[in-house]
Amino acid sequence: MNYKMVGYIIGRIMVIMAILMCLPFIVALLHREDTIFGFALAILCQLIIGFAFSVKKPKNTELYAKEGLVIVALVWILTSLFGALPFYLSREIPSYLDALFETISGFTTTGATILSDIEALSDSALFWRSFTHWIGGMGVLVFVLAVLPKTHVTQSIHLMRAEVPGPQVGKLVSRMRSTARILYGIYIILTLLEVLCLRLAGMPWFDSLLNSFATAGTGGFCLKNASIAAYNSAAIDAIITFFMIVFGINFTLFYLLLTGHVLQVLKSEELRWFLGIIALATLCITLDVSHLYESFTEAFRYSVFQVSSIITTTGFITADYSQWPMFSQTILVLLMFVGAMAGSTGGGIKVSRVMILLKTVLRELRHQLRPRSVSALKLEGKLVEEKTFLGVMSYMSIYVLFFVVSMVLVSLNNLSFASSFSAVTTCLNNVGPGLEAVGPVNNFGSLNALSKLTLSIDMLAGRLELLPILTLFTPSAWRRR
Amino acid sequence: MNYKMVGYIIGRIMVIMAILMCLPFIVALLHREDTIFGFALAILCQLIIGFAFSVKKPKNTELYAKEGLVIVALVWILTSLFGALPFYLSREIPSYLDALFETISGFTTTGATILSDIEALSDSALFWRSFTHWIGGMGVLVFVLAVLPKTHVTQSIHLMRAEVPGPQVGKLVSRMRSTARILYGIYIILTLLEVLCLRLAGMPWFDSLLNSFATAGTGGFCLKNASIAAYNSAAIDAIITFFMIVFGINFTLFYLLLTGHVLQVLKSEELRWFLGIIALATLCITLDVSHLYESFTEAFRYSVFQVSSIITTTGFITADYSQWPMFSQTILVLLMFVGAMAGSTGGGIKVSRVMILLKTVLRELRHQLRPRSVSALKLEGKLVEEKTFLGVMSYMSIYVLFFVVSMVLVSLNNLSFASSFSAVTTCLNNVGPGLEAVGPVNNFGSLNALSKLTLSIDMLAGRLELLPILTLFTPSAWRRR
Repeated sequence: MNYKMVGYIIGRIMVIMAILMCLPFIVALLHREDTIFGFALAILCQLIIGFAFSVKKPKNTELYAKEGLVIVALVWILTSLFGALPFYLSREIPSYLDALFETISGFTTTGATILSDIEALSDSALFWRSFTHWIGGMGVLVFVLAVLPKTHVTQSIHLMRAEVPGPQVGKLVSRMRSTARILYGIYIILTLLEVLCLRLAGMPWFDSLLNSFATAGTGGFCLKNASIAAYNSAAIDAIITFFMIVFGINFTLFYLLLTGHVLQVLKSEELRWFLGIIALATLCITLDVSHLYESFTEAFRYSVFQVSSIITTTGFITADYSQWPMFSQTILVLLMFVGAMAGSTGGGIKVSRVMILLKTVLRELRHQLRPRSVSALKLEGKLVEEKTFLGVMSYMSIYVLFFVVSMVLVSLNNLSFASSFSAVTTCLNNVGPGLEAVGPVNNFGSLNALSKLTLSIDMLAGRLELLPILTLFTPSAWRRR
Repeated sequence: MNYKMVGYIIGRIMVIMAILMCLPFIVALLHREDTIFGFALAILCQLIIGFAFSVKKPKNTELYAKEGLVIVALVWILTSLFGALPFYLSREIPSYLDALFETISGFTTTGATILSDIEALSDSALFWRSFTHWIGGMGVLVFVLAVLPKTHVTQSIHLMRAEVPGPQVGKLVSRMRSTARILYGIYIILTLLEVLCLRLAGMPWFDSLLNSFATAGTGGFCLKNASIAAYNSAAIDAIITFFMIVFGINFTLFYLLLTGHVLQVLKSEELRWFLGIIALATLCITLDVSHLYESFTEAFRYSVFQVSSIITTTGFITADYSQWPMFSQTILVLLMFVGAMAGSTGGGIKVSRVMILLKTVLRELRHQLRPRSVSALKLEGKLVEEKTFLGVMSYMSIYVLFFVVSMVLVSLNNLSFASSFSAVTTCLNNVGPGLEAVGPVNNFGSLNALSKLTLSIDMLAGRLELLPILTLFTPSAWRRR
């Protein structure tokens, strides 16, 4: 382990995080809120640590995959530890563990909350809470990549591998720095576009900004206790539905759109599956819940919103789906596992991995029926490399391992089976709300400390595609070379 | 598809099933019970169909994997269709679908019941119900293998592949016929041993025989409403616990024991894991439930019984575990997935597959930390072939597919999430009881027809290791060559 270089990079990121935190700090200053001290302390700590570690660039700048995994994991944990300070020191969230859970939920764009009265928070705390989604959304490190000097490019690839969601980094890697800048540009423009749309639909500026942060990061924190349902506007529901789906799409497709490759975008197999799943799930649920609403249109409005919110792992709520029939609830739980497209800001297993798993079933079936036939696994018209296939399989194995261990630990709360199962599901897939005790009208505040810790680790593991967090628990990763 | 040969083999098996059914028929005759007509009709039908198809051996005796899968699936379905007649025609189970569910649950050694009052059944129906476990346990076809003439050996390998649980058929295949006879001998001797032990512990002969049938097949049907708890005897609990574990062990190990390879048995990695998981789960649950019982010993007695019953997928009950803390219940649900050892009469994913999945995680981790290192996947000290590894991964993909589709269909019942989740879990893994609405003190009688059908297919799919049942749904499997 090249400790010096790991420290150097983490230090640089800490400085950037300190700068980003100045935004909510300014909000706190303007409103003279209790969070001022917390923000100030967090900014100060991050600056001190940041400069202390990054003042001198180490001679040996070599970084391997192992260091990449450790850096990513540590950065997310450190920023969460500091990010929790404003909530805690202002006593707006009196328990530090709760504040940490909330911050991790923010950075990982999960949106699971321990708060029962969100509206009691100060404006700066609300701003920070939603802003963590936006920072986390594109990944602290993709952001950093766009700012880092050119010499770091080779190392960046290792960071990128650990950070960008999905089985294939693909075209992204080749032109790392410029691509990262372009992606971040798209991210900012789309966010601003949503802010504008929401404002035009009648939402106040502050709410528009915060909800756009949460949509862009596919997070799901809302500044209202009733989530998006509080605005009770079909136009707002439609706008947010649209943008949730947009932010669930692979960002390289927008890049391709911008560079004029429209046909290539339309041919994207994963995009078709993603939109197809949304359409099918919406149809099923609309039919299933239509008797609960006044009109078919209304049933459609709530169904399509909830489906988009869950599959993109955003977690906004316009309808208390715990009152829906079990068929609809089951479909929503399944969508939590599916997740958004690879390369988007969404979480979950990712549509492309689900596709590979389904195609494996078909291939096995073909193989059993005609043992001599050669059947290839294709994705996006290209042969799936053995390495990618094995990667998906390893990923699923690690996923199940995380799930099972978490289930056992969370079960010590003695909540219902559906509660603990959905708590792990919703956190590991970075969705937000679950079923029963952690359902759409409840929160995670009543869980015990062990569960909050376990679910925090799950949120991080889910966001970082499992491996970095697993690495932290591996003693051999910490050995000096 | 070689329809003639498929018909010929199915015909021969039908005849054997008719002969086996004479046993409960004799019981019915002796007690002059209402089931007489049902048994007589089923025996007659099977004899007629059996002789009609098997009277002339086809010229082309070639069989491929496809035919093997179809034969296995059809045999299990046909025997279940006929096996349900005695229950239905005697009006002891008034709905044919219910009778079919109960029979499939019997043959697949699941033990999930639709009956709320088991003790109301006639003796011959009770006998037949438990006897289906015993027949199903070793596999209708392994039994047939031992009786089939020598010329069928090559075809048998295809049947065996589809039938014997676990990722590797291994040594079994080489000396198919003689091995099958030896295995069946072991099966009979162990069953008789259990009958004797239970009788000595004070259980009536009839009960001893029926409960031994259910233990041997790792089925779990009991002739008492309260399952094994009805006998309320520590000695009986101990005996059944012991035999459940025995029947969850790979039968080739007993074969090795008999041939003097004691060391090889002791070195079995899967056996160690199997016993280790039982020990660990028992310890956790004993500690978790100790406050519910008078003494630690009593807590241990119920814990070890329930753990053994669930992991071997038997499903006998001595304690209403739905009253246990969620931690214990979660462990039991996880054990349902693990299942028994490959090559035993138990169901579930199988310990060896779970081992391969866990080792995949470790290998992936090692690979990420030291990309240049070569790390092999070993099982039982031998390298896991790429083919076996891919087989396990395909199996898991198909498993998840079955699970997800079943969950959606069963959710239409609008039962609780835990109920529908555990209903699918318990049926797909051939365990028997689940949680909440299908928990240890409830039954499957209240489910709707679609669910009963779905779960019946799940039980068959679980018992036949998924592929044969999936093949039936594949149009291309039915094409003539």
